[in-house]
Amino acid sequence: MYTFKELQNIIEDNLSKIDLDISPIELYEPIKYTLSAGGKRVRPTLTLAACNLFSEDIEKSIKPALALEVFHNFTLLHDDIMDKAELRRNSATVHEKWNENIAILSGDAMSIKAYELLSDTEENHLKSVLKIFNKMAIQICEGQQFDMNFEEKNDVSEDEYLEMIKLKTSVLLATSLKIGAIVGGANENDAQNLYDFGLNLGLAFQLQDDFLDVYGDVNTFGKKIGGDIIANKKTFMLIKALEIADIETKLKINEILNLKEFDKNFKIKSIVDIYNKLEISYLAKNKMDYFYKKALNSFDLVNVEASKKEILFNFASNLMNRNN
Amino acid sequence: MYTFKELQNIIEDNLSKIDLDISPIELYEPIKYTLSAGGKRVRPTLTLAACNLFSEDIEKSIKPALALEVFHNFTLLHDDIMDKAELRRNSATVHEKWNENIAILSGDAMSIKAYELLSDTEENHLKSVLKIFNKMAIQICEGQQFDMNFEEKNDVSEDEYLEMIKLKTSVLLATSLKIGAIVGGANENDAQNLYDFGLNLGLAFQLQDDFLDVYGDVNTFGKKIGGDIIANKKTFMLIKALEIADIETKLKINEILNLKEFDKNFKIKSIVDIYNKLEISYLAKNKMDYFYKKALNSFDLVNVEASKKEILFNFASNLMNRNN
Repeated sequence: MYTFKELQNIIEDNLSKIDLDISPIELYEPIKYTLSAGGKRVRPTLTLAACNLFSEDIEKSIKPALALEVFHNFTLLHDDIMDKAELRRNSATVHEKWNENIAILSGDAMSIKAYELLSDTEENHLKSVLKIFNKMAIQICEGQQFDMNFEEKNDVSEDEYLEMIKLKTSVLLATSLKIGAIVGGANENDAQNLYDFGLNLGLAFQLQDDFLDVYGDVNTFGKKIGGDIIANKKTFMLIKALEIADIETKLKINEILNLKEFDKNFKIKSIVDIYNKLEISYLAKNKMDYFYKKALNSFDLVNVEASKKEILFNFASNLMNRNN
Repeated sequence: MYTFKELQNIIEDNLSKIDLDISPIELYEPIKYTLSAGGKRVRPTLTLAACNLFSEDIEKSIKPALALEVFHNFTLLHDDIMDKAELRRNSATVHEKWNENIAILSGDAMSIKAYELLSDTEENHLKSVLKIFNKMAIQICEGQQFDMNFEEKNDVSEDEYLEMIKLKTSVLLATSLKIGAIVGGANENDAQNLYDFGLNLGLAFQLQDDFLDVYGDVNTFGKKIGGDIIANKKTFMLIKALEIADIETKLKINEILNLKEFDKNFKIKSIVDIYNKLEISYLAKNKMDYFYKKALNSFDLVNVEASKKEILFNFASNLMNRNN
């Protein structure tokens, strides 16, 4: 068994070995820049960890794991263009550092690089891995489209929101685990249970992210508090508040959202006061709990001895800031 | 044996069967729009024709053929964003009809759709087909990057130009043929000779396109004459003229290229006069001939009875406007 840290190092090491010092540099330099920007390499590490549940030979899971990491970074690169984001992991985004055409094309090349890495999956698993990967890839596009649609939509329901975050973020975690399991030799049941574990953990995690934007500790959250509120982002918190508020409170929320000029702290405080009154934090925690437990239930069903499961169990509880 | 027209119809028919009436429509409608915009479906038809050289069962080549067509249309869609093109096949481009974000994302989804189709390649050929496809896909990105670089570069050499058009357009024709051959059961030699046939035919065709922009018949060319000249496009004609002209003529060319305001017909006539004086048409025809003959030589080497080769031979000679 490898520790999570050891698996992370294997990913980092292999990622840095992808040769990108090739011509035309205008195409490959932004890819190198993107892939060397760090991050916790969570997804490919999960692939290795899932493989390691079923096999000591994790070598065979490295290429598909890298494919997942490269594809993930491709989606971030293109999302950043669409969102006009200026920063990613505290560095200039590709379209800011170079230009939009470079960002579109180097993103395209990155997605193909992901398929190049994926094509090195062992032949007996190639077809199924490719199909699972494709399904995930198209779902991420769908999720991004729903997310963009929601910017213009004022009546996003909780179900629609959960579906969107499932597509946009959870299926990637789920697929990373499932592909690792498959190349590790898992049977279909175990692979699917790991998928469900990742899917529900991803939902819980995204809901936690929404929660921490409001109630997080600025020192540990790593992002500014209230960013979603300032941007009128339709998070679980806001959607739920609009759903359960009385007419008067609803009008008040919409009034705040529609302010063209505002003091940021005032806007954040006004919305948080409403969330407090409506006890949104309670609903959010409940929902997080629901998905976290669902995740653990699926994980429990994976037919592997308990000691082997510790790494992924600890990963999940760390992710959810839990010590149980 | 199927006729070229029959194969085209099979492609058109199967292309229209791809279900794109799905949610979110904002993502899939632009894909449907792009794929139903027509075109001659040359590449996937070549895949079927190449398969048909080796097998009467062309069914197995349909999915990879569609993958190539969908991927081709994806590259056009993203290229159109980068080139700020307003029209494609006489209809508004996706980023004009919708917006740039929609064009980026639906393009991404199209490239994944291409891989979905490709994943239905028969399992015994999947790995090799996937690898050949990936290589082509990344080369097309490289070609597009070189093409963008050339806009800013004033000393593009003939070799650099030929390498660019090889990557940007020829490898796709070559790969379409090679993949068809492989799934049809061809041996490596025959598959590679078909690849070389497509590669050199593609080069000859692109050079012909450059030539016809200057010397074509407006009624048969299908584009406006002189478009490349007005846009200062670095075609074979211009690169060659700048290479062989004396200093005085070179200055004259650059003077015309640098005109900020000009009468279009005057600009075209001035450049064409110089091309005439330098006998660029002769050089261009020579080069076309060179690649066309190279293409036919490779095709000759394909070990299939002559009668079966007629369809692809006729395709090539029609493409090059020849009746021999």
